[in-house]
Amino acid sequence: MLALESGETLGPITLAYETYGKLNEDKSNAILVLHALSGDAHVAGRSSDDGAVGWWDSLIGHGKGIDTDKYFVVCSNVIGGCKGSTGPSSVNPKTGNLHGLDFPLVTIGDMVNAQRLLIDYFGIEKLLSVVGGSMGGMQVLQWMVSYPERIRSAIPIATTLKHTPQQIAFNEVGRQAVMADPNWRSGNYYGAEVPANGLAVARMIGHITYMSDASMTEKFGRRTRPQKEPFKFSPDFEVEGYLRYRGENFVKRFDANSYLYITKAIDYFNLLNGHSLGSVFKGLAARVLVIAFSSDWLYPPSQSKEIVKACKLAGVDASYCELCSTYGHDAFLLETDQEARLIGGFLKSVVNGKAED
Amino acid sequence: MLALESGETLGPITLAYETYGKLNEDKSNAILVLHALSGDAHVAGRSSDDGAVGWWDSLIGHGKGIDTDKYFVVCSNVIGGCKGSTGPSSVNPKTGNLHGLDFPLVTIGDMVNAQRLLIDYFGIEKLLSVVGGSMGGMQVLQWMVSYPERIRSAIPIATTLKHTPQQIAFNEVGRQAVMADPNWRSGNYYGAEVPANGLAVARMIGHITYMSDASMTEKFGRRTRPQKEPFKFSPDFEVEGYLRYRGENFVKRFDANSYLYITKAIDYFNLLNGHSLGSVFKGLAARVLVIAFSSDWLYPPSQSKEIVKACKLAGVDASYCELCSTYGHDAFLLETDQEARLIGGFLKSVVNGKAED
Repeated sequence: MLALESGETLGPITLAYETYGKLNEDKSNAILVLHALSGDAHVAGRSSDDGAVGWWDSLIGHGKGIDTDKYFVVCSNVIGGCKGSTGPSSVNPKTGNLHGLDFPLVTIGDMVNAQRLLIDYFGIEKLLSVVGGSMGGMQVLQWMVSYPERIRSAIPIATTLKHTPQQIAFNEVGRQAVMADPNWRSGNYYGAEVPANGLAVARMIGHITYMSDASMTEKFGRRTRPQKEPFKFSPDFEVEGYLRYRGENFVKRFDANSYLYITKAIDYFNLLNGHSLGSVFKGLAARVLVIAFSSDWLYPPSQSKEIVKACKLAGVDASYCELCSTYGHDAFLLETDQEARLIGGFLKSVVNGKAED
Repeated sequence: MLALESGETLGPITLAYETYGKLNEDKSNAILVLHALSGDAHVAGRSSDDGAVGWWDSLIGHGKGIDTDKYFVVCSNVIGGCKGSTGPSSVNPKTGNLHGLDFPLVTIGDMVNAQRLLIDYFGIEKLLSVVGGSMGGMQVLQWMVSYPERIRSAIPIATTLKHTPQQIAFNEVGRQAVMADPNWRSGNYYGAEVPANGLAVARMIGHITYMSDASMTEKFGRRTRPQKEPFKFSPDFEVEGYLRYRGENFVKRFDANSYLYITKAIDYFNLLNGHSLGSVFKGLAARVLVIAFSSDWLYPPSQSKEIVKACKLAGVDASYCELCSTYGHDAFLLETDQEARLIGGFLKSVVNGKAED
């Protein structure tokens, strides 16, 4: 059973996870990777089920930035998700039916508490590092606050100490799009038609915020596609076709209720709630590497700098690196060459117990 | 009949307009005001119908920035709109039914061509000025290109020479939200239920882009509203309630098909199509005042500077002013004190035929 921050309990819970590399004898080489909104436990390698490549495969593996010859990598699907862990599409043991909206609200703190149980299960006393971008970065920050004694280092990427009104607003419009779809039926769509149109619109909104105007201009410009039929508002600009494709694709692999629950968890995220900036990370002994991307306007570098400031005010050993990229927020998934160099060097220095060369 | 840029013809057309002040004897004091996406002809004063105050009333009237004691102000609803001018909710004279999606595609150029007929009707040979923000600003720029000999000055505000992929993407997601609503029924919803949920979502997306994170933080912060019922994803952050209110409100006053047509006209807007930056305004004798707002991220100051650059390259007398505001794109409707001083002085100097003091 998992005691939730709301006061409710959830359980028994399932946590879907994958591991890569080998846990060493003194269990000192474990790195926990935290995924973003639509991610899952399959962070690296090829899936034996469907051959899918992990979402951070270019960063994690043999000889890569997070080298699985050296490190034991763990990644689990978050509570509230739909990729194997307990979420709104799981069976409610009390009723025997799927949860739907009787699934309780979960928070980033709850996600991290569930991960802590997994780390306990492995008998890992202290993680070498926790690393993740976007919502994954929020979980990293939450680890720094909830379990400072369980981590030697932390790498929050493209993230923020708290969700701002504009960030909440984008998520809320996505939720509204899902809930406006008559197929949503207050979350009771399992076994029937899913709210595909609504979820696709939500994902399209998300995608705009994940890219930058520069990356869209590089990728599509104002190019149009040939129209087969008389114009009836079918996509004619390439960027429209791309967004629609990404929206439709998302529907095949994601549960609409999970989208609602996870975006809400993100919106509630606020480490500054009742704390001054200088007190958030008070007493944290772990070393911290904060990474941001120049063109990320969803979680802009200014928010990463605030994380660094909070660390510095608390006397935490923190480095900041702003990587140059036109990819916008998506850069944390795409600029893996740059990330590999930074993260690889940082992990080495943490292992060696000294400042970076 | 109006010959459209697409090659089709539309008509006979109706153009709803309002005027303020008095046209002087030599018809030299006329200012054409151009409205944005959701605007209408009622730009100033109180409506005799419903008492509604005009959308730029704080800028236009007796003794105001655009002083109706001195100037004759004309504002018309755009072609494709739903506030009295011919649009998709008008009767198609060929079929006797409402247009719906058999309404032809219209462009910013078509809107301006219709306005030119109105100016001809008044017998105005040369407008003292054309002024507008956002899509209104696009019409101003289009006037500068289509009818340079008919204007003495132009004031494009918070606008751009061409719509970029990100700007297109935001509009497209709004259209997708409308079209995902089953009540939309391929545009044939007149006389039945309107696609209210879809249009509300579209408007919510728009509103996020009209504001700034700073203005949302000032207005709402992360404040929440008390929940009356068990949490089922009803708005709990104030910013969510505000967006939903704005979305629902919009549905009462705007036609969903007009939303599709007008956003598409905006997306097609590209004065640089086939022209170099330096050639767009070649030969324009009018004086130009370009205004942008510091926190506008939908039509950022960089795009206004590009307009100024295009003017300078063509030898056009152009001034640029970036007004400091936290209101984001909405600033063009809200920072009327600052605009009044700028525009009032500029108009005076145009009348006097000399450079600004």
